[in-house]
Amino acid sequence: MPRTGNKNPFPTVDIIIEIGAPGERPGIVLIRRKNPPFGWALPGGFVEYGESLEEAAVREAHEETSLAVELLGQLHTYSDPGRDPRWHTISTVFIARAEGAPRAADDAREVRIVDPRRVGRRLVFDHGRILADYNAFKEGRPPWTKTSPRTKALSRTAS
Amino acid sequence: MPRTGNKNPFPTVDIIIEIGAPGERPGIVLIRRKNPPFGWALPGGFVEYGESLEEAAVREAHEETSLAVELLGQLHTYSDPGRDPRWHTISTVFIARAEGAPRAADDAREVRIVDPRRVGRRLVFDHGRILADYNAFKEGRPPWTKTSPRTKALSRTAS
Repeated sequence: MPRTGNKNPFPTVDIIIEIGAPGERPGIVLIRRKNPPFGWALPGGFVEYGESLEEAAVREAHEETSLAVELLGQLHTYSDPGRDPRWHTISTVFIARAEGAPRAADDAREVRIVDPRRVGRRLVFDHGRILADYNAFKEGRPPWTKTSPRTKALSRTAS
Repeated sequence: MPRTGNKNPFPTVDIIIEIGAPGERPGIVLIRRKNPPFGWALPGGFVEYGESLEEAAVREAHEETSLAVELLGQLHTYSDPGRDPRWHTISTVFIARAEGAPRAADDAREVRIVDPRRVGRRLVFDHGRILADYNAFKEGRPPWTKTSPRTKALSRTAS
């Protein structure tokens, strides 16, 4: 049986939106948050009951950046209980692309297109780590084989 | 703000446990469910608040099959609202390996090691599709680039 209320982590999505001229290495879209924790982050938000992750990703990207994104795929799903200081979220991260100019809306105060290789440490939540995984993925190392030290320790403990 | 109660989908994990002699193509572990919907399925279950997906995967694999698994990575995260007839779950699927003989316990009535290429259509939930994705992955086609027809339609609608 599933638990109700705060006994379940909250599913969320974050979206790495690639944008740029054909042939160029793409920039990605960051938003400056209107709510705490303040700072720069990937666009994203909570998944509604009855909504797929893919629907949530397209909806949240549009709400915060005004862009109509095309999803390219899932990068990874992040679930460390400390990744959000407020509550336990589990975020599935999508890579997407869009054309046109983003415009901040909803929970985003400002929006910017940046070089993903130059922003990692200044982001809120675990979005710096997510961008590091994305940059590694773009260089041919998919995160699917990544097991955190914590996971490895846990596997050994269980045996 | 996250919604409480049944306004959020429930995060779950399912685990594809590879087992077999070195050098052989591995079999995978299926369980026969003690609770409805009855039938054969991948081991798995709900993620607890404060528990990572990786911890949940190791715990659920052990509870249902008595195996101490080593996680190899995430395959994909499945979120179609109709994938479970009872409620909306979002399942992150792991590939893992284990040694020894599985023994049914907890929610599993029976356990079996099967050839993953020969079981797809007889499984409950969307586990047949998951195994099809797993088989494709083992042949070099990772599901990360997969976008469902529904997603494609949605991307077009949003533009």
